[in-house]
Amino acid sequence: MFENAELGRTVTPEKYAVELPKLREKVLNAHFELRGKKFPVIVIVSGADGAGKGDLVHRLNEWLDPRGVETHAFWEPSDEECERPPYWRFWRAMPGRGRIGIFFGSWYTDPIVDRVFGKTKRSQFDSALDQIVAFEKMLAEDGALLVKLWLHLPKKEQKKRLKKLDKEGRIAPDDWKNFKLFDEFAKVSERSLRRTHTDAAPWHVVEATDRRHRELAVGKILLDAILRRLKQAAAQAAAKEAAKAAPAPVAVSVPEPAKLAAISVDSILDHVDLKQRLTDTEYEKSLAAQQAKLSKLAWAAHAKKRSMVLLFEGWDAAGKGSAIRRVTQAMDPRLYAVVGIAAPTDEERAQHYLWRFWRHLPRAGFTTFFDRSWYGRVLVERVEGFAPPADWGRAYGEINDFEEQLTAHGIVVNKFWVHISKQEQLRRFKERQTVAYKQYKITDEDWRNREKWEPYKLAVNDLVAKCSTEFAPWTLVAGNDKKFARVQILKTVVQSLEVAL
Amino acid sequence: MFENAELGRTVTPEKYAVELPKLREKVLNAHFELRGKKFPVIVIVSGADGAGKGDLVHRLNEWLDPRGVETHAFWEPSDEECERPPYWRFWRAMPGRGRIGIFFGSWYTDPIVDRVFGKTKRSQFDSALDQIVAFEKMLAEDGALLVKLWLHLPKKEQKKRLKKLDKEGRIAPDDWKNFKLFDEFAKVSERSLRRTHTDAAPWHVVEATDRRHRELAVGKILLDAILRRLKQAAAQAAAKEAAKAAPAPVAVSVPEPAKLAAISVDSILDHVDLKQRLTDTEYEKSLAAQQAKLSKLAWAAHAKKRSMVLLFEGWDAAGKGSAIRRVTQAMDPRLYAVVGIAAPTDEERAQHYLWRFWRHLPRAGFTTFFDRSWYGRVLVERVEGFAPPADWGRAYGEINDFEEQLTAHGIVVNKFWVHISKQEQLRRFKERQTVAYKQYKITDEDWRNREKWEPYKLAVNDLVAKCSTEFAPWTLVAGNDKKFARVQILKTVVQSLEVAL
Repeated sequence: MFENAELGRTVTPEKYAVELPKLREKVLNAHFELRGKKFPVIVIVSGADGAGKGDLVHRLNEWLDPRGVETHAFWEPSDEECERPPYWRFWRAMPGRGRIGIFFGSWYTDPIVDRVFGKTKRSQFDSALDQIVAFEKMLAEDGALLVKLWLHLPKKEQKKRLKKLDKEGRIAPDDWKNFKLFDEFAKVSERSLRRTHTDAAPWHVVEATDRRHRELAVGKILLDAILRRLKQAAAQAAAKEAAKAAPAPVAVSVPEPAKLAAISVDSILDHVDLKQRLTDTEYEKSLAAQQAKLSKLAWAAHAKKRSMVLLFEGWDAAGKGSAIRRVTQAMDPRLYAVVGIAAPTDEERAQHYLWRFWRHLPRAGFTTFFDRSWYGRVLVERVEGFAPPADWGRAYGEINDFEEQLTAHGIVVNKFWVHISKQEQLRRFKERQTVAYKQYKITDEDWRNREKWEPYKLAVNDLVAKCSTEFAPWTLVAGNDKKFARVQILKTVVQSLEVAL
Repeated sequence: MFENAELGRTVTPEKYAVELPKLREKVLNAHFELRGKKFPVIVIVSGADGAGKGDLVHRLNEWLDPRGVETHAFWEPSDEECERPPYWRFWRAMPGRGRIGIFFGSWYTDPIVDRVFGKTKRSQFDSALDQIVAFEKMLAEDGALLVKLWLHLPKKEQKKRLKKLDKEGRIAPDDWKNFKLFDEFAKVSERSLRRTHTDAAPWHVVEATDRRHRELAVGKILLDAILRRLKQAAAQAAAKEAAKAAPAPVAVSVPEPAKLAAISVDSILDHVDLKQRLTDTEYEKSLAAQQAKLSKLAWAAHAKKRSMVLLFEGWDAAGKGSAIRRVTQAMDPRLYAVVGIAAPTDEERAQHYLWRFWRHLPRAGFTTFFDRSWYGRVLVERVEGFAPPADWGRAYGEINDFEEQLTAHGIVVNKFWVHISKQEQLRRFKERQTVAYKQYKITDEDWRNREKWEPYKLAVNDLVAKCSTEFAPWTLVAGNDKKFARVQILKTVVQSLEVAL
């Protein structure tokens, strides 16, 4: 894989002096064109120590419009980073749409270093690479342009260069130590590149010996990639316009709401026994017992640095909020945060839809409650048509990957769908209209959502079928009796914590 | 101070049952009214262990609209928090305008605990309290409503309550240990409350023995505070409208731009010797020498966990960007971040103007370059009239406080005003128009800013006079010769690091 980057290519100072200004102008103009576009550019700068990665990062920063570019170095993780799944730090650094993020170090660093130093087995290494492929595919499908650069330097050249850096006092602390592992590093790198070179995110191996060649080569790669992506974006926009202009056969493909509501779906929700109830005495006894258990378990989990993610979805008026409060009441307020998912802020809108959930993941030993969640992608966005079918269709797999990362990190994940019957919802809507401090909870939107009961039911059926995994199962809560629902939720949380601890 | 909270007030269950629903309705409606208003509400819940702070936090969350409230517990600081000045974690948690933030624990916790445990002297304690007063004043002047609650429990009651919590297994790990220090804690708390009870942020001491009394009292305090603040906001809005409607004597009070430009200001900038130059040979020699020094110092600072904040202001086309690059070139890209300050995002706009700078403070051992900075408040916002005089006039003191916090934490702060003559700016503007990849740097706004040279000069004179402090001095850079400017900046940075290390 690297043979082609050991040809001894050089660029003369004269040629460089002529070509660079032209290239810079083109790169800069391409950068300006990015502004306001709906996709980010992620530039990964990798390669051996001493190959000039640092210089290249400096150069890119010089060429690009500083207002639209940010550089992120991934190095010593902070404890806040260590306390979340490994990809948290990368999500944290993602550039927003229309911006360029230069990643100096990336999700490749740890898998390669761990393998070179023998901390992981071959199979673990390969599965880390598989994870990268899935991650990059997800970013690319969301529109991101990935430009992955590998600066290659033959062994002899590298030695020469390290000596020079050392002499100038510009060498990084571990450079010499790493050099001893050159051959192993080359082998592991090569495997990484080979297995993660995909259509969605191809690698560009750059011969790095000659600075001028390196710079011009990288400039051309970046320019070419951005221009092609811009052309693609323009073509997509044009196709969308054309589709709008053409007489759309909407009436044929999408049943009207009234008809949809009439379609009966054999849904998993129909199998929830909504008759389950608790008497007041049973309720008070169970509630107190479960809350006492949870209180202790929450402290124990904190002591053991185990985190929890509890997410709540359900019909309007199903009692999500009050159920969450029965759980939080048992916990010290210092141990949890409740995140209500409403309209995204503009910083959130500029990112992949999962970004806003990554940012709220709990530190080690803490719990985050999500009142509505990433399942909005396959619920409201699907049913209301906010996301095209290709987007929400892809989301099931992305969500499973996400939740697997959480649980692999040791986070206990519980997902609750609080279910009620359509009749019970109507009763509660009416009740809400009569109690002064509950009126705010009932809006026109709730009534509109109610009309889409059947499409939502279909969507719930799908998300349970596709995303109830061994590591993060869905719990369907029988919510017609609020008392029963609360105790069911508490018991589930308690049980999952008991198993985890 | 606490005598008034030991009267044994109670509320009967009957009265509570009648009053609570009415109060909840009012509180909730007040919360709805906050939405879209231009100020945040910060509720601080403090008091002795066992006084029911946790219960109260649960209760407030129950009463308020979950979409507009967030709870933050301040407890074990993470290493990312420890690596920044102590107030970083509070800035991080600030609610945006129109929202309520419940602070369980706050900037009071550490000063009180440190004093009780004898970790600080009386004078240090008092100066921590002074800092709180300044901080809260700053928030309040930006519009924030601070509701500071102190739940008081007589000693006897506290013992009883801790026993009960203990029996139920709901006690926090340090509760009993802290109880032994009850008297000392009461004394220190009392002093805290007394010295931080200001018009801008008064304390409310609540008798906490009886749960029902406590809840109704807090509900009423919160309701009252929000309603008064809303009334005040409405009055301010009405006054603004009235001022708009009235024929404003604008022409008299504000000189026209043309006239302003003609006023000659004896500015400190006139004393910068812009004739200073370097020959190419001098430049190359000095640049290489200084960059080599900086490279080593940057690694040394990293090893010693010393951080740096370097901020750059200056005339358009003064060469800030290229000067920053000469500094960054000497540093490993993993050691620094460059933050360009452009239009704020909506999350930033919803906060105090300093918030967006706090969020970018470097971790220990790293450097942040600010390309433009918090001085925008007293430069562009002042000159263009984006902020009213009262706001930017207050900013000098706020900025000094901010920078003092940085330096007190050990961060090396350097502030550069890159100065050029008006003639030199004209020459550069024209040059920019001829070089293809520089054209983007020159816009109509630059020409407009140029017309306001004199008011800007006045503003620069003021900010240097008011904000060049011993701990964070301004450096006026002679920028007519770019080479001289770059070396001057590098030398300043090198020197300040040498002193610090």
